[in-house]
Amino acid sequence: MTDKPTIGYIGLGLMGKPMALNILKSGYPVVVHNRSKEAVQDLVEQGANAANSPKEVAEQSDVIFTNLPDSPDVEMVALGENGIIEGASAGNIFVDNSTIKPASARLIAEKLFEKDVSCLDARVSGGDIGAINGTLTIMVGGPEEAFQRVLPIFKVIGKSITHIGEAGTGQITKCANQIMVAAQMVAMGELLILAKKAGADPQKVAEAIKGGAAQCWSLDVKTPRLFDGNRQPGFKAYMQAKDLGIVMDTAKQYGVPLPSTASNTQLFNSMLELGMENLDNSAVVGVIEMLANANLLD
Amino acid sequence: MTDKPTIGYIGLGLMGKPMALNILKSGYPVVVHNRSKEAVQDLVEQGANAANSPKEVAEQSDVIFTNLPDSPDVEMVALGENGIIEGASAGNIFVDNSTIKPASARLIAEKLFEKDVSCLDARVSGGDIGAINGTLTIMVGGPEEAFQRVLPIFKVIGKSITHIGEAGTGQITKCANQIMVAAQMVAMGELLILAKKAGADPQKVAEAIKGGAAQCWSLDVKTPRLFDGNRQPGFKAYMQAKDLGIVMDTAKQYGVPLPSTASNTQLFNSMLELGMENLDNSAVVGVIEMLANANLLD
Repeated sequence: MTDKPTIGYIGLGLMGKPMALNILKSGYPVVVHNRSKEAVQDLVEQGANAANSPKEVAEQSDVIFTNLPDSPDVEMVALGENGIIEGASAGNIFVDNSTIKPASARLIAEKLFEKDVSCLDARVSGGDIGAINGTLTIMVGGPEEAFQRVLPIFKVIGKSITHIGEAGTGQITKCANQIMVAAQMVAMGELLILAKKAGADPQKVAEAIKGGAAQCWSLDVKTPRLFDGNRQPGFKAYMQAKDLGIVMDTAKQYGVPLPSTASNTQLFNSMLELGMENLDNSAVVGVIEMLANANLLD
Repeated sequence: MTDKPTIGYIGLGLMGKPMALNILKSGYPVVVHNRSKEAVQDLVEQGANAANSPKEVAEQSDVIFTNLPDSPDVEMVALGENGIIEGASAGNIFVDNSTIKPASARLIAEKLFEKDVSCLDARVSGGDIGAINGTLTIMVGGPEEAFQRVLPIFKVIGKSITHIGEAGTGQITKCANQIMVAAQMVAMGELLILAKKAGADPQKVAEAIKGGAAQCWSLDVKTPRLFDGNRQPGFKAYMQAKDLGIVMDTAKQYGVPLPSTASNTQLFNSMLELGMENLDNSAVVGVIEMLANANLLD
């Protein structure tokens, strides 16, 4: 027995796997479950226990994390057959790191509340690099008491952790985050291709502007990858498009027109049609390349 | 006599005045000229000489800077009656810190070249804060030899100085810069109002996301001002709109569609119609407030 709570982690993808690993490495007992067994095996080799279903994870855990692609996935894992709801007991905390529809998050929270399980919507930002290094930004909505109990675990996976407010505000913050990330990625694509076609070395241009008012994470972190010809994720374009769909739905729900994000959403949606869905979100520069009949690296 | 070259500075506005002052403070003889005499008087009190026309400035200077609102202003000051061209002599260098149309910049460069005067297009970014603190980002196009001669002066007014390439590339880099700055400002406005109307504290939301992939200069520098209720420039909205007009013209000239910047340009153009033209560029949040019938600080 350890005095540390047992952590369940369901969804060992590009983000979830390194996050679960960081929790494991800092001494928490960890129980994992994932559709693909390879990631489970890697975690088990480092000391995690494997469970056969979300229900089993919940039975063995005090705090259950999920990190899944989309709303239906989280609903199924939380509320479906052999889901968390069947294994969770009073006092457990459910923490969702996925980015999903507010309506789904509310449904799950209501159902789990009936079993006396608290829910935190804990959206993360910072990409695979942040997940691996344990430097994610974590935006949390939900009850203060549950937040305080999970905070030591958040500190293992993230660097900047903010409790925004009541349930759903983590989701709203993630929407806010994606508005800015999408804007930076698209602007980066536009400015690099303009520089290219206008005969100014795009690499020098990026270098020059990132020390000033244009400074941002995207220029700092993503331009070196793009100039290396690397458009691999990172954060996949189809996830960016999915998140922006949630942003636009949420904005409509609350009566906020988003002219710029609406336009950016269309460009990420194009990536799905153009076979770029599994590239990094910074690869939206490829859409601008197509529009301008240009190639960044030519 | 001093061994330092004499610097002329024409256009002592929000940016030009502190830049001229920093050059003066670092020991260069400075000759100034400005339409409004108040700024001239301030500089003279600190040791600058006043000249009655751009021509007179050029007669007394080795390197002549201009920092003016728009293309016609720079054309008039450089090439018009009593303009720089009438007073400049062979070996002088003309440095334009304004953001103007590439066609104007080319015209001026050609005319001055006939008098053996080199031209640098040295666009700056970093706002009034950067101008005052001498921490501007300077993006320079033009001949290498002229760049090297002016570099010590650039170092007095800026922190990050990059020689991009041949004439015009400073201008292209400034376009690239404005694409990103506009994107950040608009995205900031959209995300703050979404947070507000969705019931998440916008200040906490901004705090939460600025440590992650959304990190950028605008969130770092502008949100504290906005939450203080301060929408004063900084960098005026009508200048942002003017610069974006140049960006869109330049992009069209080089055959680069800019879907996101086109949309952002419309929002800044709205500010001119809405009486927000003299507010800071971050006050574009006011357009989103109007669209969403909301108030950030209510």
